[in-house]
Amino acid sequence: MTVTEAIQKMDAYEEAIYALNHACSVLYTDGATAAPKESWKGRGKTLGYLSGQMYKLTVTEENEEVFRTILEHRDECDEKIARRAELNKETYDDMHRVPLDEYVAYEELLNEADAVWHEAKLKSDYAMFAPYLEKMIAWQKKIAKLKDPEKPVYDVLLDMYEKGVGTAQLDQFFATLREELLPVIAKVAAARQPDTAFLKKLYPVEGQKKLSERVMEMEGIPFDRVTLGETEHPFTSGVNKWDERITTHYHEDDVMSSLFSVIHEGGHALYDIGSDDDLQFTCLAGGVSMGVHESQSRFYENLICRSLPFCKALLPVMREIFPEQMKGVDADMMYAAINASSPSLIRTEADELTYPIHVMIRYEIEKKIFADEVTVDELPALWNRLYKEYLGVDVPDDRHGILQDSHWSGGSFGYFPSYALGSAYGVQMLEKMEKDIDVWGAAENGDLRPVTAWLHERIHRFGSLKKPQEVLMNAMGEPLDAKKYTAYLKNKYAKIYPGITEA
Amino acid sequence: MTVTEAIQKMDAYEEAIYALNHACSVLYTDGATAAPKESWKGRGKTLGYLSGQMYKLTVTEENEEVFRTILEHRDECDEKIARRAELNKETYDDMHRVPLDEYVAYEELLNEADAVWHEAKLKSDYAMFAPYLEKMIAWQKKIAKLKDPEKPVYDVLLDMYEKGVGTAQLDQFFATLREELLPVIAKVAAARQPDTAFLKKLYPVEGQKKLSERVMEMEGIPFDRVTLGETEHPFTSGVNKWDERITTHYHEDDVMSSLFSVIHEGGHALYDIGSDDDLQFTCLAGGVSMGVHESQSRFYENLICRSLPFCKALLPVMREIFPEQMKGVDADMMYAAINASSPSLIRTEADELTYPIHVMIRYEIEKKIFADEVTVDELPALWNRLYKEYLGVDVPDDRHGILQDSHWSGGSFGYFPSYALGSAYGVQMLEKMEKDIDVWGAAENGDLRPVTAWLHERIHRFGSLKKPQEVLMNAMGEPLDAKKYTAYLKNKYAKIYPGITEA
Repeated sequence: MTVTEAIQKMDAYEEAIYALNHACSVLYTDGATAAPKESWKGRGKTLGYLSGQMYKLTVTEENEEVFRTILEHRDECDEKIARRAELNKETYDDMHRVPLDEYVAYEELLNEADAVWHEAKLKSDYAMFAPYLEKMIAWQKKIAKLKDPEKPVYDVLLDMYEKGVGTAQLDQFFATLREELLPVIAKVAAARQPDTAFLKKLYPVEGQKKLSERVMEMEGIPFDRVTLGETEHPFTSGVNKWDERITTHYHEDDVMSSLFSVIHEGGHALYDIGSDDDLQFTCLAGGVSMGVHESQSRFYENLICRSLPFCKALLPVMREIFPEQMKGVDADMMYAAINASSPSLIRTEADELTYPIHVMIRYEIEKKIFADEVTVDELPALWNRLYKEYLGVDVPDDRHGILQDSHWSGGSFGYFPSYALGSAYGVQMLEKMEKDIDVWGAAENGDLRPVTAWLHERIHRFGSLKKPQEVLMNAMGEPLDAKKYTAYLKNKYAKIYPGITEA
Repeated sequence: MTVTEAIQKMDAYEEAIYALNHACSVLYTDGATAAPKESWKGRGKTLGYLSGQMYKLTVTEENEEVFRTILEHRDECDEKIARRAELNKETYDDMHRVPLDEYVAYEELLNEADAVWHEAKLKSDYAMFAPYLEKMIAWQKKIAKLKDPEKPVYDVLLDMYEKGVGTAQLDQFFATLREELLPVIAKVAAARQPDTAFLKKLYPVEGQKKLSERVMEMEGIPFDRVTLGETEHPFTSGVNKWDERITTHYHEDDVMSSLFSVIHEGGHALYDIGSDDDLQFTCLAGGVSMGVHESQSRFYENLICRSLPFCKALLPVMREIFPEQMKGVDADMMYAAINASSPSLIRTEADELTYPIHVMIRYEIEKKIFADEVTVDELPALWNRLYKEYLGVDVPDDRHGILQDSHWSGGSFGYFPSYALGSAYGVQMLEKMEKDIDVWGAAENGDLRPVTAWLHERIHRFGSLKKPQEVLMNAMGEPLDAKKYTAYLKNKYAKIYPGITEA
């Protein structure tokens, strides 16, 4: 096979994979938003068939030759061709170890696990979900062993979400977070809390929808390429730069929940749709790793939109939509209120300071699961014990405990650390960004396009062309430094809770 | 190949086709509702790939043998197996005459034609759409000739929408409509019109949405299997009995437009989701022909919901949602207003009496197109001339003329007669239904479940298992009789416009 032939075959292969991924993505998004409740009964068959097709197209002897041929001649090839072959080869390597019937069976298990988890969470019935969790964990262990029998299972899994970052680095990262943040969290918990009563007033859904639109506008999200839907659990899903969906949930007694969900998912969306035109419809379109992805979403959510300058931009918009609820509120009050911190139960609703501890708890639990140090039955007790130990909170039931996140039910083990890594990456990006552009002027104007342009230039446009570490160096200019992250948090919270520095 | 082997292969084939159809259907519905505007840029590739896959799965030598083997042994097979082989054989026969690349190219042409038509309609620019229409007509002619070189092209096309009904029967059918209805239409147009002013008041969209829900409830539509969306052109799309979508459009100055769209599409939906469980995921699920399909939608829309008893059920609901707008309106006034008739420009907004003439005009035009008696350039003039001749109206522009319908842009030529046939079938079904159940009691109660149960028993549950003519005999008890349809209309309108019988 010549390189030219190999490239043609890879083009055709990726076009087919694009189409199948596109179909699965729309089936998923539609299933979570517009589809009738009972429609799941006919969706599993279709998703099973499509994922079977993806497998059959990927695991062929020819493909092995195609990708190998290109990689053997990578010096003669365009950078994009070589990188595509590299990523396709990785997918091939992962997939070909599993027989087709097992692959499809696992896809069907995931489909069912998701439905069961939704119900189990609603009923706070862990026993209902446990058998599925057991099976998924067993599968992950098996696959990880096939992939790399030498490496600890959890390191193999972590590598899927943030290449090159394993337990050695994460143990150190979380140790720093623990040492630096737990004392601050304790002090903040004991301090006088800012007034948040105005945020707990009734904010009707119609007004919240208007607010969503306005902040998407401020974030610079193009409505002709990104739409907003409603789901119980917010998510982002996209297939190309012209077709991206984000979702949120509205709680009338918690206006900030949806607002920051929209901003967060909007950050994911901006990254996804930012890939260069010539990466579209190939495996290089879209974000390169979950750590980098979360760095973008949490950058907008926390570093920019939970800042005092952005509060100054947000305030008039909120006053316009909710004049009664916002009576007597100024930017400083809003800033203090949206950053109020106290140990809590739910990760997605946690404040910026306690958030990484929620992630650390999940990291410790997953590490134990894949080191065979805890059984599935023992997980709720372990979860509750760690919440008590680190955050001092009592978990009242599994709905507010181990059943809260959707990740495990979707087969994602090793994903959680991305959130904390992403937050830390963001702090170092911000430091560099501040040297180049007037970040806080943009935030105060409520026009974040300069921020997005900066991120676009250093991260978004590359899609998966450059490796995560290259992209991060582009945007951070230095390696990860957990101390910068903790220093940022300590500094921010010392200003919001002035009492804590004196204690 | 043994029959058992053939059946197994047919099962696998239909499962794959189900999955591909499901994916295409969701991509289409999502594209028309939730998807961002620019998303079409990435959808054509996917739809092209999926339809190519459908072709590749269908046009195989093995399939020919599979369907032939079953049909040769049809007496030993279950009725469902035999019918599935018959329908699959028809699809195979149609498809295998066209080379793959031409097939995919046509699918892509349709995709593009649809986008162009939307814009052409908006701009009232027929010249923009004409080249696409030209290409689609040429394709239809070519395919029809390949299918049956002996038969006139238009008869081949008509057969796709209502098997066994061709120009011989339709010429006669429309001649009866013309003779019987045109004089009545003229008299009604000259008569004193009922008061319709209250229907033209402002009805806010939020209230109309509530009204949609209420009438769907009255129609007995299960919300956990059928959802309602919003599109410029209402449609129904379904993939199995648990997953059906209908859409409508809201005009604040025309409350009845959406109301009757919802009822109409709801009728299609009830037919689609009514197929027996053991037909699901096979080619027997869903309606058997477009004529029968339109008989169901127009049954609910006109025969039931434009009746005086149903007005009595609708009135309190409308008073509750729109108290101001409905002040002083009683059931008789509403009945007269929603049945007010006058020659008009737009088929979908036409009243029950003039509606079949809109269809007849399209029938005459399509007949001329496929008999090579008119060129694409001459079509707007022909359209406008026939509207003047039959309905006495002047067409102001192509947007309100030849560009109004979506059928041609979707490649549907020969579909229109289904609407008039369906209306006529419905009248004969109603006559039979009235002998079995208390139709008007159900209408007055605003609970149409007995009506649906009757239709379900005779039509819906069979899906495509029985042929159209069998299903119709089941429900009508006699062959089509155009005079019963015209007698029904004349009788109804003589009561609404009492003056016209004296003239």
